[in-house]
Amino acid sequence: MTRIDRKAIPVPTLRRMPAYYNYLKALLEKKIVYVSATAVANDLNLIPIQVRKDFEFTELAGKPKIGYNTELLIEAIEYILGWNKMTNALMVGMGNMGHALMSYQGFKNYGLDIVAGIDSDRKKQGKEIGGKRIYGPEKIKKVIKDYEIGIGIIAVPVDFAQETADLLTAAGIKAIWNFAPVKITVPADVVVQHENLASSLAVLSQRIKQQKEK
Amino acid sequence: MTRIDRKAIPVPTLRRMPAYYNYLKALLEKKIVYVSATAVANDLNLIPIQVRKDFEFTELAGKPKIGYNTELLIEAIEYILGWNKMTNALMVGMGNMGHALMSYQGFKNYGLDIVAGIDSDRKKQGKEIGGKRIYGPEKIKKVIKDYEIGIGIIAVPVDFAQETADLLTAAGIKAIWNFAPVKITVPADVVVQHENLASSLAVLSQRIKQQKEK
Repeated sequence: MTRIDRKAIPVPTLRRMPAYYNYLKALLEKKIVYVSATAVANDLNLIPIQVRKDFEFTELAGKPKIGYNTELLIEAIEYILGWNKMTNALMVGMGNMGHALMSYQGFKNYGLDIVAGIDSDRKKQGKEIGGKRIYGPEKIKKVIKDYEIGIGIIAVPVDFAQETADLLTAAGIKAIWNFAPVKITVPADVVVQHENLASSLAVLSQRIKQQKEK
Repeated sequence: MTRIDRKAIPVPTLRRMPAYYNYLKALLEKKIVYVSATAVANDLNLIPIQVRKDFEFTELAGKPKIGYNTELLIEAIEYILGWNKMTNALMVGMGNMGHALMSYQGFKNYGLDIVAGIDSDRKKQGKEIGGKRIYGPEKIKKVIKDYEIGIGIIAVPVDFAQETADLLTAAGIKAIWNFAPVKITVPADVVVQHENLASSLAVLSQRIKQQKEK
């Protein structure tokens, strides 16, 4: 697969990859070694042509009337997403949300290991959460270097989100996962994924309000 | 505001509402009682015309050269989203993610109160997390009735997500916030908001992989 091909993977396809990945892993546990695009589509509420198009990015060809090799598909998805290698992440902000995300072991299945935390509260510094140590903000550059951090996760209050992003990018971080419900500005070579739980809640609560008024 | 007007609020506008809300609350704390659409746009990385269009749904008119009344805007957003009334939520699945979300106090700012939990693990049942009691799945219908639950939150493993959604909708739940990385099927009158952290991570990790290969 050439670099140009991989660059061309559209975001909606990327976002469906984890669903395929989890589904295929469950199949493999049940010793189902081949699966058709139609079966995948049925089970995941997608249309077969969409699944086939998404699977084209794996460069695997399905066998007629048999389907795709489950194990090879899993490996191809891991390769595409870089999940075959673990990326170290730093959690900045050890409030409830930061603490929660740091305790969650599930991200390791997706190649992400949160290895250390940062918090401005001196009482938290030097302590450990699930074996991961918390440092003060003045240590951020050293921690990023020592732990070979690839992703910075922002879980600080809204007012400190931009400042935190600035600290992370100044220390060389090129990928940020932002859980603070505010837009942050970063240099052009830095990628940011906004995780806006409040926005999802806004959509959900407005729909509930509508239903009540019917 | 008529029902038809409110129904018409587009999802992207709804998703921006929490950012406006947090921003306006911060302004009010600094005793800034009027704000222009241009200032909001600058501070939140939006274009002024977008902000003005979004604010039209509040039915508030900005005063020329003065702007919008901060406090009235906050109240209007709370009203639109139903955040002026608290909705009780039930957390199903008390693994790391469920535990984490239940411990997070921040959702109360957005009108959501997680008041009880469900887990199939007998060792967890009867215990409390942050003062909120955990029940067995056989109690789900009674818990939903007793606690007047409006939103069901799914944080169970992928294989149990559909089953959980079926239990919730059978018990009368019309709104589901799904953190399991799998699509779920629900009756037409039920709204589902998928929160796919794994999908966000897929986009982020693939971009990191691309950068490394440059």
